Amino acid sequence: MSIIVTKFGGTSLATSERVRAAAERLVAYHNEGKQVVAVVSAMGAATDELLALAKSVNPSPPARELDMLLATGEQVSMSVVAMAVEALGVPAMSLTGRQAGILTSKAHNKATISELKCDRVQKALDGGHIVIVAGFQGTTLEGELTTLGRGGSDTSAVALAAALAADVCEIYSDVDGIYTCDPRVVPRAHKLDEVSYEEMLELAAAGSGVLQMRAIEFARNFKVKLHCRSAFSSANGTLVKEETMEQAVVSGIAFDKSEAKVTIRNVPDALGIAGELFGAIATANINVDMIVQNISEHGHTDISFTVPIGDLTKIKTVLDGLLDKLGIREYVVDDTIAKVSIVGAGMKSNPGIAAKMFTVLAKNGVNISMISTSAIRISVVIDEPSVESAVLALHTAFGLDADEVFEETQLSDEELAAKAKKGR
Amino acid sequence: MSIIVTKFGGTSLATSERVRAAAERLVAYHNEGKQVVAVVSAMGAATDELLALAKSVNPSPPARELDMLLATGEQVSMSVVAMAVEALGVPAMSLTGRQAGILTSKAHNKATISELKCDRVQKALDGGHIVIVAGFQGTTLEGELTTLGRGGSDTSAVALAAALAADVCEIYSDVDGIYTCDPRVVPRAHKLDEVSYEEMLELAAAGSGVLQMRAIEFARNFKVKLHCRSAFSSANGTLVKEETMEQAVVSGIAFDKSEAKVTIRNVPDALGIAGELFGAIATANINVDMIVQNISEHGHTDISFTVPIGDLTKIKTVLDGLLDKLGIREYVVDDTIAKVSIVGAGMKSNPGIAAKMFTVLAKNGVNISMISTSAIRISVVIDEPSVESAVLALHTAFGLDADEVFEETQLSDEELAAKAKKGR
Repeated sequence: MSIIVTKFGGTSLATSERVRAAAERLVAYHNEGKQVVAVVSAMGAATDELLALAKSVNPSPPARELDMLLATGEQVSMSVVAMAVEALGVPAMSLTGRQAGILTSKAHNKATISELKCDRVQKALDGGHIVIVAGFQGTTLEGELTTLGRGGSDTSAVALAAALAADVCEIYSDVDGIYTCDPRVVPRAHKLDEVSYEEMLELAAAGSGVLQMRAIEFARNFKVKLHCRSAFSSANGTLVKEETMEQAVVSGIAFDKSEAKVTIRNVPDALGIAGELFGAIATANINVDMIVQNISEHGHTDISFTVPIGDLTKIKTVLDGLLDKLGIREYVVDDTIAKVSIVGAGMKSNPGIAAKMFTVLAKNGVNISMISTSAIRISVVIDEPSVESAVLALHTAFGLDADEVFEETQLSDEELAAKAKKGR
Repeated sequence: MSIIVTKFGGTSLATSERVRAAAERLVAYHNEGKQVVAVVSAMGAATDELLALAKSVNPSPPARELDMLLATGEQVSMSVVAMAVEALGVPAMSLTGRQAGILTSKAHNKATISELKCDRVQKALDGGHIVIVAGFQGTTLEGELTTLGRGGSDTSAVALAAALAADVCEIYSDVDGIYTCDPRVVPRAHKLDEVSYEEMLELAAAGSGVLQMRAIEFARNFKVKLHCRSAFSSANGTLVKEETMEQAVVSGIAFDKSEAKVTIRNVPDALGIAGELFGAIATANINVDMIVQNISEHGHTDISFTVPIGDLTKIKTVLDGLLDKLGIREYVVDDTIAKVSIVGAGMKSNPGIAAKMFTVLAKNGVNISMISTSAIRISVVIDEPSVESAVLALHTAFGLDADEVFEETQLSDEELAAKAKKGR
């Protein structure tokens, strides 16, 4: 019997009405003869509310207890969705992460899935139940409750889909698929019918927030076909799978305003300096994205790198502590930058894409301050105020413009509010 | 090392401030060198809110899923209390009912505790932790989550205290102990320093709502000393234990306005009729309290009994179905009655208490319509409007009046509001 795994995000379950709508979808699949699993996130803003409650009694809540608390959000969702399914006359069974056999590492708040023991899920499916699993949570072998970190429900869903050999893993959210670019910035952006795992990974890394990176990696490693679609419409969304029919030179354009650029001037060009510098930064748990080192002059060089704006205080502490040790005289921080990336699997076989990108930007008066590339992505750092003109020009130049103009008015007020809140 | 088990009710944990106050108590015991366990209810009105959420998606939520949902209330409490303890610098560990080894029957929504496997609790205590256990919930041997029904957290606490051989089980709530009668009705009521399990059982059965009956029975069976006290003051409350120092003839007076009286007239006085009648009522899951059968005349008799007002619709259905079968011609329902009970372990050795009670009531113009007695309790059914004068007269006649008059103004607004909400 064919198995389908679905995942519903918090916005898709924010009200009783939406819970009922989700239940109707599940029942429809059940009535088509499919075995149906739903992985659910916490309803609406539940996780944020629980976090606020924690902070009200302890400014730095211990990781283990935070997991115990946050896991209740998904436990509420799963039972409410199960009740809504039962109200439609179909047997349902909710399962916690532990009951669903989701075994994880011991790292509270950021556990990784180590193994899935799906006998109980499979037994419930074989018994005719729609199975609702709490996303985002699991258990250690010792019976300790863990959570997978923000966005972890996507990973729960993909892992279950892999373990159950599901036909597809449908990710329902408040966006209706993967777009060539954010339609609020590029009105002629269009929805992609399909995109490869590699492209999706690069888009996610470049700032497109639709799917969590770990989930995409999991899907790629276990060849789980993903379908990103809207919980508010029955239209098809975007398929994420191994090979796409046509390999577009550029599939999508992503931008990211959440990073700052740090430039260290006149670093002595000695062996081991870069290792020591980025080692210290990694130890402070700061995630460095792009790194560029300029040509050495007179035994000294400039090193630039980007970090999340939220980590600027931490990075300053690290660098101030290293100044003397590494012979660094000064560093400059710029938080008015943005990263623009073009991604496409077809780049591999099409030389000259980078040159074309730089030319387009130059013609539009956009100055490039950093460049980094992978096999299927080119990213540049530019001034933040230039982002809009840059992505509009690139979108047109790489032939991504749709005939129709995206109308925000097609969306409901709630969808717009949800988009505005979480970014796209 | 001496072990103390404490239980905090929902009102005692309704705000972050109260959670911190509870944590301070736990830490104070810890600093005295005790091993400390806290059993917690859901915060404030959390359980009612979860119930309302359930009803919003399914008017008759399935029992299994309701357990999954309601259990999150205590799971939130336990982790928040643990966080508050950690904020005071003492290691804390929260445990779900399953993790605490509370094994139950399979009856969802009304499970009974079958066994406690406290190794994990004991290990955490021995490791220096204050252990916070989610009340009201447990697990079946098969790993299904169950709840113990309303008020079940008291039972969780007493069961844990028994299994851990704790010195005492402290029950913190918004009332500061067991009173001779409800002080809002009898201003000269006073708090009892101690009361026996038997008396407490009779008082609870007679309508005093401070402690849940199952918890008292558990405490009696396993000789767990209970201490009912206020979460809002450090004053001693009431000890509930096996033998009390002095056996008062009458320890307390309870009343209950929540029942209705059903009288069946002219029941054929044949063998097996009563059995068939109450068998049918029991099958409909209706809890009959008092039963009185009058003297038979001409082969017919009148049978009266009391049932919860909430079950009146059900009882009417049952009786209507039996009319022909049992040869019943008519029955009368009266929901304006009340039950008044006097309870005292000293009654056993003091004859004439019943006669005194009836005389006092008669002198005060209170008409008695039903009587039932146990070894240490006498209950009468009277008209509801007479309740106040009846209990005031009995309280004085049996020497229970305090010198001081209870002042509601001694209570904070929140305590008053809490009392008004839940009754005493």
